[in-house]
Amino acid sequence: MRGWRFTDTNVPLKLVEQPDPEPADDEVVIAVKAAGLCHTDVGILHDPNWLPLIKAPVILGHECAGQIIKVGANVKDYQIGDRVGVSPQNPETGQTIGCMRDGGYSDMAAVPANQLVPLPDGVSYVQGASATDAGMSSYHPLFVTGKAKPGMKVGIIGIGGLGEFAVNMAVIAGCKVYAVDTKASARQWAEKIGVEAAYADIADLKDQDIDLIIDFAGFDTTTNEAAKAVKAGGTVVVVGMGILHSTIDTGNLITRNVTLVGNSGGTPEDIANVYKYFQTGKMHPDLPTTTFDKIPEGLVSLEKGEVVGRLIASRD
Amino acid sequence: MRGWRFTDTNVPLKLVEQPDPEPADDEVVIAVKAAGLCHTDVGILHDPNWLPLIKAPVILGHECAGQIIKVGANVKDYQIGDRVGVSPQNPETGQTIGCMRDGGYSDMAAVPANQLVPLPDGVSYVQGASATDAGMSSYHPLFVTGKAKPGMKVGIIGIGGLGEFAVNMAVIAGCKVYAVDTKASARQWAEKIGVEAAYADIADLKDQDIDLIIDFAGFDTTTNEAAKAVKAGGTVVVVGMGILHSTIDTGNLITRNVTLVGNSGGTPEDIANVYKYFQTGKMHPDLPTTTFDKIPEGLVSLEKGEVVGRLIASRD
Repeated sequence: MRGWRFTDTNVPLKLVEQPDPEPADDEVVIAVKAAGLCHTDVGILHDPNWLPLIKAPVILGHECAGQIIKVGANVKDYQIGDRVGVSPQNPETGQTIGCMRDGGYSDMAAVPANQLVPLPDGVSYVQGASATDAGMSSYHPLFVTGKAKPGMKVGIIGIGGLGEFAVNMAVIAGCKVYAVDTKASARQWAEKIGVEAAYADIADLKDQDIDLIIDFAGFDTTTNEAAKAVKAGGTVVVVGMGILHSTIDTGNLITRNVTLVGNSGGTPEDIANVYKYFQTGKMHPDLPTTTFDKIPEGLVSLEKGEVVGRLIASRD
Repeated sequence: MRGWRFTDTNVPLKLVEQPDPEPADDEVVIAVKAAGLCHTDVGILHDPNWLPLIKAPVILGHECAGQIIKVGANVKDYQIGDRVGVSPQNPETGQTIGCMRDGGYSDMAAVPANQLVPLPDGVSYVQGASATDAGMSSYHPLFVTGKAKPGMKVGIIGIGGLGEFAVNMAVIAGCKVYAVDTKASARQWAEKIGVEAAYADIADLKDQDIDLIIDFAGFDTTTNEAAKAVKAGGTVVVVGMGILHSTIDTGNLITRNVTLVGNSGGTPEDIANVYKYFQTGKMHPDLPTTTFDKIPEGLVSLEKGEVVGRLIASRD
């Protein structure tokens, strides 16, 4: 099999040949059909702060879906031919594929069975891959940490790879959704999906009595502006790690009893729920595709901000 | 009657004579027995930002207790002679005594009956006054916003007028309490009350797997350090308004799923609960007293940081 191997910070990914993987007793091997390109991978390539989280050399790719081609001796719930998504992080060991063990930028990958999520009929491998990180990382802050409910007024800041999922799912769930993005194209996308309004400026949310804001940008001022724009007693969930600090007006937090809560990750159950949203036929996040051969070029496009939505390497 | 009247920023309080108050139909008049001196009053005296919240000229004093001497026509639940504390803010109008209408730095005050909290036997007027603001403003972040429960590990930052109440109530409630204050005398006080440990440095909380931290200091770095010291998934409640902003490490909030929530105020029910804590006989916050004639001097001492605990003007 072939895969894109990471060795060290600022060393380009290398396409390597290595023996086909065999599953351990509690693992399966999948033929990778789709793998998402994530800003985390751009970070791993260029930022040495990621190294402690990586067991190099390793094949990257933590957002993937595929078809099972081998099954370990103790795996009862899956069989050869099953279509599955792969939850990035192991619920027991905390180990992440594409970081601590070989991942999805490859022809095939061995994966612990407890990270698998069955891919339902009607949900493509491309959608299936996108749901395992972009989808899960939008679902969890919105519905689990943020407790979004039908009828709630929800602001979504940053309508990119994750924000598109959040806007789309919140609209389907019956929330009144207000989107914020500096890009006119992102606002137009949100309007097509059915938001109440799309703004360029977070401050415009102030007049709308917003219960919950999800900040997918996380660029310092965005978080503080969100905390000022949410209604008194409201909640801001911070997801985006654009800049890793924010100067917060604590007088505003205190006098208006605002909650600011960080969210990272999610669960296999979140991924299964995102698949259900795809099954409604109403989910239309931008999922442009590329080929596995062009993953390095795709990561460069992502770094340059040229990608709209979530870029997926696909064999479909 | 006489009272200490505020007219404008940086104008000293003036002791004025004015006609005794008469209660409106839904009000009572109390003979003020005790009134607490609060940093808010120091702010009102010197910071013009308070002026929009003040209806000058007005007699200050928003933390008081006394005995009912007149009862309005429609008041059914109280009678002359009843001992009561006064909740600072009206639950219906939001109007605060000692700010928007004459308060407790006086011989007597007219108060809407829906702000009264019966003062139980065994709780003094001095304790009764202190519970209406210092007590309520500690009870609410600890037990309502912070949801402190028996057995929980709770960190309290800033063991002053409010922090002493919080430490004392959390210990009585069966929490494992960790106190933080830069003053050795404050740490010694906390150790006497029965905390697990008292530290000078917030970072020392890190080793203790703390569920909940209440930040009564709010001096920029205290809030961020609290967010780093609380356990993953833990909560920091910000109460202190020492400096009205804080540079927050949002990477820490996000990757460790930390909640930061502001808290101001509380309810008459909180005050009643603080009275129950006093009735246990185990509450020993520092409540030094002065006389009503010396309220201006007391506020100067408070401003200079010379007051330990909550300073109360008392007629007992």
